Amino acid sequence: MNGNSLKLRPTVLVIFGAGGDLTWRKLVPALYNLFLEGWLPEHFAIVGVDRKAMTGEEFTEHLRTGVNQFSRRGKTEAERWSEFAQHLSYRTADFDDQGAYQQLAAQIATDRKAWATNPECIFYLAIPPALIEMVVVHLGKAKLARDRGHARVVVEKPFGHDLASAQALTRQITKVFDEAQIYRIDHYLGKETVQNILAFRFANALFEPIWDRRYIDHIQITVAEAVGVEHRGGYYEHAGALRDMVQSHLMQLLCLIAMEPPVSFVADEIRNKKIDVLRALRPLPPEHIHKFAVRGQYGSGWLQGEHVPAYREEPDVAAASTTETFAALKLFVDNWRWQDVTFYLRTGKRMPEKQSTIVIQFRPVPHQSFPSSAAMGWEPNRLLMRIQPQEGIILRFQAKQPGPLMRLSSMDMHFAYAEAFKTTPPEAYETLLLDAILGDATLFMRADQVEIAWSIMAPILAAWATVPPTDFPNYPAGAWGPEAAEALIAQDGRSWLLPALEQD
Amino acid sequence: MNGNSLKLRPTVLVIFGAGGDLTWRKLVPALYNLFLEGWLPEHFAIVGVDRKAMTGEEFTEHLRTGVNQFSRRGKTEAERWSEFAQHLSYRTADFDDQGAYQQLAAQIATDRKAWATNPECIFYLAIPPALIEMVVVHLGKAKLARDRGHARVVVEKPFGHDLASAQALTRQITKVFDEAQIYRIDHYLGKETVQNILAFRFANALFEPIWDRRYIDHIQITVAEAVGVEHRGGYYEHAGALRDMVQSHLMQLLCLIAMEPPVSFVADEIRNKKIDVLRALRPLPPEHIHKFAVRGQYGSGWLQGEHVPAYREEPDVAAASTTETFAALKLFVDNWRWQDVTFYLRTGKRMPEKQSTIVIQFRPVPHQSFPSSAAMGWEPNRLLMRIQPQEGIILRFQAKQPGPLMRLSSMDMHFAYAEAFKTTPPEAYETLLLDAILGDATLFMRADQVEIAWSIMAPILAAWATVPPTDFPNYPAGAWGPEAAEALIAQDGRSWLLPALEQD
Repeated sequence: MNGNSLKLRPTVLVIFGAGGDLTWRKLVPALYNLFLEGWLPEHFAIVGVDRKAMTGEEFTEHLRTGVNQFSRRGKTEAERWSEFAQHLSYRTADFDDQGAYQQLAAQIATDRKAWATNPECIFYLAIPPALIEMVVVHLGKAKLARDRGHARVVVEKPFGHDLASAQALTRQITKVFDEAQIYRIDHYLGKETVQNILAFRFANALFEPIWDRRYIDHIQITVAEAVGVEHRGGYYEHAGALRDMVQSHLMQLLCLIAMEPPVSFVADEIRNKKIDVLRALRPLPPEHIHKFAVRGQYGSGWLQGEHVPAYREEPDVAAASTTETFAALKLFVDNWRWQDVTFYLRTGKRMPEKQSTIVIQFRPVPHQSFPSSAAMGWEPNRLLMRIQPQEGIILRFQAKQPGPLMRLSSMDMHFAYAEAFKTTPPEAYETLLLDAILGDATLFMRADQVEIAWSIMAPILAAWATVPPTDFPNYPAGAWGPEAAEALIAQDGRSWLLPALEQD
Repeated sequence: MNGNSLKLRPTVLVIFGAGGDLTWRKLVPALYNLFLEGWLPEHFAIVGVDRKAMTGEEFTEHLRTGVNQFSRRGKTEAERWSEFAQHLSYRTADFDDQGAYQQLAAQIATDRKAWATNPECIFYLAIPPALIEMVVVHLGKAKLARDRGHARVVVEKPFGHDLASAQALTRQITKVFDEAQIYRIDHYLGKETVQNILAFRFANALFEPIWDRRYIDHIQITVAEAVGVEHRGGYYEHAGALRDMVQSHLMQLLCLIAMEPPVSFVADEIRNKKIDVLRALRPLPPEHIHKFAVRGQYGSGWLQGEHVPAYREEPDVAAASTTETFAALKLFVDNWRWQDVTFYLRTGKRMPEKQSTIVIQFRPVPHQSFPSSAAMGWEPNRLLMRIQPQEGIILRFQAKQPGPLMRLSSMDMHFAYAEAFKTTPPEAYETLLLDAILGDATLFMRADQVEIAWSIMAPILAAWATVPPTDFPNYPAGAWGPEAAEALIAQDGRSWLLPALEQD
């Protein structure tokens, strides 16, 4: 399978912030892999733009070290790399220098002439949010946003800091680009298993009939990180788990699990169906936020045999920081399909392991016809969709224990992507960059999605800002979050299903 | 898990035909395993009865060689065997000698006295059908059938040769034993996976909602044997595949797959629910039997690298035999759950491998929202319940292929009993003998089941007897049956799902 069957049009990809980490660690390794697998068009140019003074050769060499270090394919192979490098160029430029944009426009005009067609022009903004408006305005002035069918701008998350700032950012960009030209990236949506949720639900006739309140008891979404805040303290202090993870990744996972079947896989159809879920989320009552949302911050502790510092001891973090590094929510989707089914979400840093899992917990059988002696250890069915580390699906069911009497026990049916397909799945950025080249916005966020997600966060953000936490840090590094997160689910007579225990 | 938690009552098991193959290969190896695992009561006696003159020591030694050769646990361990052997005794007797039954009654009376209770008395008739009436009448005369709560008679299949003979046999036995005392054994029902069909369907909330005509397209039941008729030509010539396999094993599998959920696991409740299925089977129109039933007989051929003879060349088989060694049926269950769902059944000897599998083929998704490019190789969901050789469950579903585009392919979720439980499951006879000791008749056939199953076979047997086959042999050893069996399913636009291809 390669790109040959696709209509890949000539493409110019301009990366603003080409000297930064994202370009080095993620974007260029992804582009190089796309190149190796034949997913890049015959005519393509990757233009790096940044303030840092570098020659084209220095830029290329810098990128090569990034690919060698971060690509899933390992080190570059000299011949293919030099082939790829011919498509790379670098421009040292101040983002506020209109002349630089004119030169960029001229370079693209040259490509257009050489390729005898209007290329796809993708402007990838790998830059801090504060610089976005500036770059976009200059792109507009240089008439680079004009070709509505072919010009696109890719904006990295975080997209805004709250509802108002997200709306403001969209307003700024839409002065120059149409909404349809804006590709808001959430790399989580490019992950194989995240996409596989759609395939699992809608390419199989088996699951959709039981995918509702009649058969599902509750749903859990856990996105746990083992890492702390690392070098991102400066950013994270102003974000926190709710903004950084819940508003984006967890809301998207919730949408994929809860959405109605799409009519087609056209971008706006999928995004409309997701919006329907977000719109159906029951607003949290501002006066009872604590009954539905729990926050936490890690203290020092032991993780995988190593002592790690508290969040407040991390670089660029305030000594009395009230930023949450953990959040757990209890949500309801008020529609016919999901009424009364509880959705429990949690995410945190410095948890015992990196582990993202969605648990669909089914109701018990309506009638237990087996004798009670058969059913010791009886458990309702459970479907685990594992996103990382190993992507896979585990279906827990009851089977007869071998033996002359009828005794039941819980067993797992397994499916592991890596085992089944025996290939390394592409990185999320490979998928998303190819989609941007193809002009397929399905896996990118539309303005209304982002805004509704922010509006769901709003009452929690407001409540947490009004009443600063007094118990931080309230969980040690290496734990599954604060006790209050256990209480949040325990009060419903349920418990977090620790993904670690689900491993075989 | 052992017998300690069960109320195992003192038991006398009398085996008529104790010198025969069944006792040697199956019954005693099963009893010894039950003994080793603590499933036999503290007080138990196994009394062998046969015409052959043997001492108790010779009998015991003969049984030991059988256990060594046929037990799933391998060779006996001297100390445990001699412990077990203390419970064995042997009586040389003519089955028609009333005096022998009186002596047997006296021996049981001695046990009753020694154990200070009425033991469970199980009379296992491991004898040819022609001898059953004789033994039963003598048991009655010796007043051994009287204790309605504790005396049982186990009758081996075949139970009759057609409806009339099955009814006659029941009439003969019920002159002495009540129907509730008669345990008609079909060892197939004692197999782990056969029982697991009940667990799978009724201990899980996931499958029952989709277990009907709305979601299931059709069902296939294949019971394939690699062996030929072996040394059983004399019996088989008068039986054939329809009598030997379809009337018993395949009808039972069909019942387990198609039955409604039982209220409880009480024997008569389960059996009533099975009867409901048999009663709902659409009668085959006598004038169109050929549209619903196909017969075959193997010729010589190659099987697993070896040349094997034709059925007509086997010992004790007529040179122009018209006995079928293969049968395929197409059936419908006329009720709300199954209307219009076709059930395809086939069984045969000298097929490429020993393989028993039930295939539940689901309907396609009602709406294919994925782009047609995504769905190359699209297949509806399929559930495979494998009975042998490896017992397990395979769920075929659609997953996204790893890669930057949405492309689907069929993948399998696996569950293998042996892997999951890491123990050898008990042999069918272990399960069934324990049930007989416990007085649980769930897995045994009631008269009405046997009779309805025969009445379903009746029009086929009649049609086949009326018009002898002219094309026998019509499949070579090592094939999946005659071409007509392919046509039977192909005319519905479907095909037999070759179990061999389903293996991973």
